[in-house]
Amino acid sequence: MRELYHLWLSPACRQVRIMLAEKQLEFELIIEKEWERRESFLKLNPAGEVPVLLEADGTVLPGSTVICEYLDEAYPEPSLLGDTALARAETRRLIMWFSTKFNVEVTENLLSEKFDKRFLGRGSPNTHAIRAGKTNIGYHLEYIGYLCERRRWLSGDNISLADITAAAHLSALDYLGDVPWDDHPGARDWYARIKSRPSLRPILADHIPGLPPPKSYANLDF
Amino acid sequence: MRELYHLWLSPACRQVRIMLAEKQLEFELIIEKEWERRESFLKLNPAGEVPVLLEADGTVLPGSTVICEYLDEAYPEPSLLGDTALARAETRRLIMWFSTKFNVEVTENLLSEKFDKRFLGRGSPNTHAIRAGKTNIGYHLEYIGYLCERRRWLSGDNISLADITAAAHLSALDYLGDVPWDDHPGARDWYARIKSRPSLRPILADHIPGLPPPKSYANLDF
Repeated sequence: MRELYHLWLSPACRQVRIMLAEKQLEFELIIEKEWERRESFLKLNPAGEVPVLLEADGTVLPGSTVICEYLDEAYPEPSLLGDTALARAETRRLIMWFSTKFNVEVTENLLSEKFDKRFLGRGSPNTHAIRAGKTNIGYHLEYIGYLCERRRWLSGDNISLADITAAAHLSALDYLGDVPWDDHPGARDWYARIKSRPSLRPILADHIPGLPPPKSYANLDF
Repeated sequence: MRELYHLWLSPACRQVRIMLAEKQLEFELIIEKEWERRESFLKLNPAGEVPVLLEADGTVLPGSTVICEYLDEAYPEPSLLGDTALARAETRRLIMWFSTKFNVEVTENLLSEKFDKRFLGRGSPNTHAIRAGKTNIGYHLEYIGYLCERRRWLSGDNISLADITAAAHLSALDYLGDVPWDDHPGARDWYARIKSRPSLRPILADHIPGLPPPKSYANLDF
């Protein structure tokens, strides 16, 4: 059986979980506390980070970019990157938008400060960072709305890894109750659509002991 | 003519310059001071960052990942990602290694602190960051040596975008005289090999007004 080493609120891990589900590929989840720097895990991924996907034949794929590009090549139906080089360029532009720009401006300011620091005992949250994250998320939600006025999904007519990457980040923040959906109806409509897909169901069923999600987290009508 | 919007010491821009040269694709360089947030540049790339590649037919490709993946699809010879899905996974693993892990642990601590801050007037360099960067670079140079004991190039028998990405970062740091090559002979041998390729020549001819490189920068024998 395929195994995914992951952490519950890691957007990169959620991206792979949704990707696998959209491809209808079965897998088992294994929690990897990467900060323990387990030796046999470091052999799988010298970078020491989740996600790592272990295919049934022993193939090791470390990191969400590597995993998702590989899965789209090895299991091409349905294509989640796009059918032409240009379509793939636009999908990858938006994947990078969320996995770098959104990550630095929003996810690290909110998720890392509020969750990682508290649960991993890495000091008290930086209130300036949290304020910056709360301001920045508005610009990104407006950008999602802007794109969805012009296209059905973020990178074109079909759902793609761009939507999956954005949903991976936003669902993790939504677990903390940190997404002001009501102020951004365009982004809210897009999230309602992706939230109702079967691939999101396991993500919405996540329940971290000691940190339950708000009620709206799994509610398809918000 | 193809145009590349770039900045001289940006590793992401150097990665694209070397990639284009390895593919023997001609291009013109245009300096883009991204911090000025020029409106017509923001239309090319809403993320407001270099590199951006403008193809002769008007196709806009923003960001080094998007550009390099596109170029390898559109101009497949020679392949710089690899010939199989697994080979591409290993190349992408190492691209991510240098563009995220090395970037955070080394490049941002040295290049951003020493160059960006001074030239862009963003305050004085953080000496703790510089010390961390100088410590971390040693581990990464050892890793390059480790890989080259097992393979001819970083990701396999042929030069790939993994080597190009590593050389893009290390050449920018070498411009500042910040790479302790003599302490890491394995990495030094690898860099001597890539440095002697025609694709590196324009990079080694870079000369930023007011900030000349050390003599060893362009010296093929160090």
